[in-house]
Amino acid sequence: MAEMELWFTEQQTPDLGFTCKITKTIYTAKTQYQDLAILETKQFGRMLVLDGAVQTTIADEFCYHELISHVPLFTHPNPKKVAVIGGGDGGVIREILKHDEVEKAYLIEIDREVIEASKKYLPEISCALDDERAEVIITDGIKFVSENKNMFDVIIVDSTDPVGPAVGLFQDSFYKAVFECLKEDGLFVAQTESPFYDQELIKNVFHAVKSIFPITRLYLGFIPTYPSGLWSFTLGSKKYDPLEVDISKIKRIDTKYYNPELHKALFALPTFVQEIIK
Amino acid sequence: MAEMELWFTEQQTPDLGFTCKITKTIYTAKTQYQDLAILETKQFGRMLVLDGAVQTTIADEFCYHELISHVPLFTHPNPKKVAVIGGGDGGVIREILKHDEVEKAYLIEIDREVIEASKKYLPEISCALDDERAEVIITDGIKFVSENKNMFDVIIVDSTDPVGPAVGLFQDSFYKAVFECLKEDGLFVAQTESPFYDQELIKNVFHAVKSIFPITRLYLGFIPTYPSGLWSFTLGSKKYDPLEVDISKIKRIDTKYYNPELHKALFALPTFVQEIIK
Repeated sequence: MAEMELWFTEQQTPDLGFTCKITKTIYTAKTQYQDLAILETKQFGRMLVLDGAVQTTIADEFCYHELISHVPLFTHPNPKKVAVIGGGDGGVIREILKHDEVEKAYLIEIDREVIEASKKYLPEISCALDDERAEVIITDGIKFVSENKNMFDVIIVDSTDPVGPAVGLFQDSFYKAVFECLKEDGLFVAQTESPFYDQELIKNVFHAVKSIFPITRLYLGFIPTYPSGLWSFTLGSKKYDPLEVDISKIKRIDTKYYNPELHKALFALPTFVQEIIK
Repeated sequence: MAEMELWFTEQQTPDLGFTCKITKTIYTAKTQYQDLAILETKQFGRMLVLDGAVQTTIADEFCYHELISHVPLFTHPNPKKVAVIGGGDGGVIREILKHDEVEKAYLIEIDREVIEASKKYLPEISCALDDERAEVIITDGIKFVSENKNMFDVIIVDSTDPVGPAVGLFQDSFYKAVFECLKEDGLFVAQTESPFYDQELIKNVFHAVKSIFPITRLYLGFIPTYPSGLWSFTLGSKKYDPLEVDISKIKRIDTKYYNPELHKALFALPTFVQEIIK
């Protein structure tokens, strides 16, 4: 007797699909902002899908969450107040709270249901959201950032792709508001898609950030469930340069991807990526 | 009127597929050793497929071919005689011949039909096979390596996955023969699959090479059409350490991925990859 096979396919581009076998649809919902699904996959364990795009999986979430968190937090010498824009699954908050000097980490998420589904079905990722140093604020990240000045040491923009609710998080006006929302020596990082499929976006964001922040850097990491497997992060900083960090002083924390020896290597770009931001 | 859609799917693991739209099947053959196909894809241009697995595409072949070639060739101070085991598409030969000091590059390929199909359908990749410094030898790479001693400065093992004709290229006895086939200051590199899906293989190869060569290093690169997008290369060397290369002396050649600033960064490993080879 043959068993039915269920496969989930993300159309990563109109001509390319990423397809994986699922054993169960754990949960689906139409939230106020997006289609949400939690799937049980054979290859990656549980998977969070928003509007048909893979957001995170149990097997590889460490790649993304560590890359977007520890590079900025080890670049700032004393990050006390940190904000995450988006990131309702809580993975970035979990990584931020590995840094003892962080006094408060704010999760600014527009969609309450992402948080609730993550708490219920992805406890490995969302586990730190109930920490006493974490504070969840359900609101529009763009509004929050524009209404708060001189407030954070580090801001991490953990957005979905630049369609739907996240469009405004890739615009010049948002980066200007982020600049104002940071303290005078603050810095921020944003996920900025794949250097293989999203070159125009990376170019535009990099130059927008560069026109606002004195220091702008692009770094890369590997995330197998994202299109192409190679992912970019754009960092804008008022004072501290990630390339001038004394890596001998980086504290050892419990990680599976990030390590001090990798810190500067992440900024060494293949030639075709250098060309994008030239 | 709707048009028929053709999609090619590589089952990268039993639970994971990579699927892309094709406009045309250019050529298919059952060779003496494997199933061969040249497809025209929308996303990546022409694609070479062997036994159902993507080998190379016009869009991303530069990643793999540059990574496997320029790291060893810029580690050896004077590579005059170089051999490629496998690599019938000719992409590695093309990269090797960008190095002026190379006097002769040998392509040791078991399957003549891979070379012929590549010459006919993938001229951008195979273009250097008719160069006067290139010599093609149709034979079993294992046999060739074991019959030639003290002959090469650099050997590049550009194999298919460790199934079918390539199985013997991942065995201890082969690495011993490679050691003997190299000159007294020679070095070699082999493609060694994905750190995300092939951890056991990477571990076994690394330790096998380490038991034979005084210097053993693992480096990583990004290849979007290979499983997970992250790929590993294992380098064994009798004398020269890739981490001790004076990168200020690396000549600039025409590349899209490799550059001197990247040379050592490729060896900075995420923690989970360090664990594999510990």
